[in-house]
Amino acid sequence: MHSELWVEEKFQDFLGLRLKVEEVLFSGKSEFQTVDVVRTKGHGKMLLNDGLIMVTERDEMAYHDMISHVPLFVHPNPKNVLVIGGGDGGTAREVIRHSNVEKCVMVEIDAMVVDACKQHIPQTSSALSDPRIELIIGDGVKYVKECGKQFDVIIIDSTDPIGPAQPLFGSEFYQDVYNCLTDNGIVVSQGESSWYAMDIQKSLLQVLNNQFEKTYLYSFSNLTYPGGLWSFTFASKSLDPIADFSKQRVIDSGLEFDYYNAELHTACFALPNFVRKGLGGLIVNS
Amino acid sequence: MHSELWVEEKFQDFLGLRLKVEEVLFSGKSEFQTVDVVRTKGHGKMLLNDGLIMVTERDEMAYHDMISHVPLFVHPNPKNVLVIGGGDGGTAREVIRHSNVEKCVMVEIDAMVVDACKQHIPQTSSALSDPRIELIIGDGVKYVKECGKQFDVIIIDSTDPIGPAQPLFGSEFYQDVYNCLTDNGIVVSQGESSWYAMDIQKSLLQVLNNQFEKTYLYSFSNLTYPGGLWSFTFASKSLDPIADFSKQRVIDSGLEFDYYNAELHTACFALPNFVRKGLGGLIVNS
Repeated sequence: MHSELWVEEKFQDFLGLRLKVEEVLFSGKSEFQTVDVVRTKGHGKMLLNDGLIMVTERDEMAYHDMISHVPLFVHPNPKNVLVIGGGDGGTAREVIRHSNVEKCVMVEIDAMVVDACKQHIPQTSSALSDPRIELIIGDGVKYVKECGKQFDVIIIDSTDPIGPAQPLFGSEFYQDVYNCLTDNGIVVSQGESSWYAMDIQKSLLQVLNNQFEKTYLYSFSNLTYPGGLWSFTFASKSLDPIADFSKQRVIDSGLEFDYYNAELHTACFALPNFVRKGLGGLIVNS
Repeated sequence: MHSELWVEEKFQDFLGLRLKVEEVLFSGKSEFQTVDVVRTKGHGKMLLNDGLIMVTERDEMAYHDMISHVPLFVHPNPKNVLVIGGGDGGTAREVIRHSNVEKCVMVEIDAMVVDACKQHIPQTSSALSDPRIELIIGDGVKYVKECGKQFDVIIIDSTDPIGPAQPLFGSEFYQDVYNCLTDNGIVVSQGESSWYAMDIQKSLLQVLNNQFEKTYLYSFSNLTYPGGLWSFTFASKSLDPIADFSKQRVIDSGLEFDYYNAELHTACFALPNFVRKGLGGLIVNS
């Protein structure tokens, strides 16, 4: 390709983010969505589902560190972890860095996402060959309804609530998630942008609040999602993400991270006032 | 204008941010730069200098809260404040909300920026008529060389280190800033993006380190700057932005903010590991 090639993610009718593309590595259409992998000039290799940026090599560590290490350093002994979605493999990769994790079940609906990432983005997908990861290509909604298993931590690494991920934002799904969690279990979910999608955040938090004793929102900086200030929800049956967290445990783990650290763990629950006010009553940390 | 109108901010050769424009309100060329004010569909009215987004009505509170309230709640009694740049008026607006501030001198090089904002963006510029604000249209570099005054807090609300703001990133300028500060004075400066401009951050922090006893970086989420995770530098002759900060003082002030709060004050100094590692040795909070 010698012409100027750019990919643009449009957000609603007022925003567009354009990234320079050097090479299209994969382009397919699965039963669920379009799947593209491109090599960008500024952000390394990048996965897009239905034209929306999912992962870039340059900043994926921010998302994957924060979705996984926050709950895994709060739960006292996470042995069994379930990831719903996360087909690029980055979340599972971070989960199994924790030595107490014995098993990480990952349920991704779209085999094409996994295959494209295995072939083109080893940075996130290479951990999928680890024997502690059980990869199931299937419907996460059905899985949590039928699995009958108990997980210590469940991570909902979903796309936006349109297309295949839509049921992952509903109350029936979270009833089943609740039933799949141990007594002190934690569920962390992809929580959208407070700048642009507070309506989705409110709806998801309402669902979580109906089911769980304690619900929180925490934030981090995502370089390539519209809004930048991205968030995860944290809901648990009993554990508090700050009171039940010990910095010493991060130090003792011996793990090194590119984004997460013990100070950031506490800091990410301190939210700007417009988020506190907008979500007041729905989160403990408002 | 009935056609599709968009403004695009390009960053280097690999990124573009496009915003839908509904109306061009002002378009001029001063001695220093081009100045445009447009009404956008998603972000309210917006100021651009040389085609770069400076301020939007939607997210300006994040920038202006964090550049002003962090130093003003650390200094025990900020009576005299100097703002260099900040022609839209938003920083000065927040400074004079502090009741102990007796005088805020603002030195902006470009009258066209001030005039365009006075005419079209009262949300940021309306405070400029306050008698405690002394607006000087002139060169900030020259001002700090000659002023001989003693300020408690100096805020460098500059554009990027290209064009008119370039000298505001140099060592000679910060020598003069140091001499304009009281014994426990603080200087806070626009500190660019850790994702995309760490080279500029390093260079600025090196300059600050050569002059000041303690230098820190703190971060916040800016919706419309490339990189999202934006930062300010904090340098002082003696004060520590966390140890010398009291949450009670924020409560006692009775002030309400759209972005800043006492928990965020401490949290914003907790930086991701890639920033800590990249700036290690240059900042206290690495």
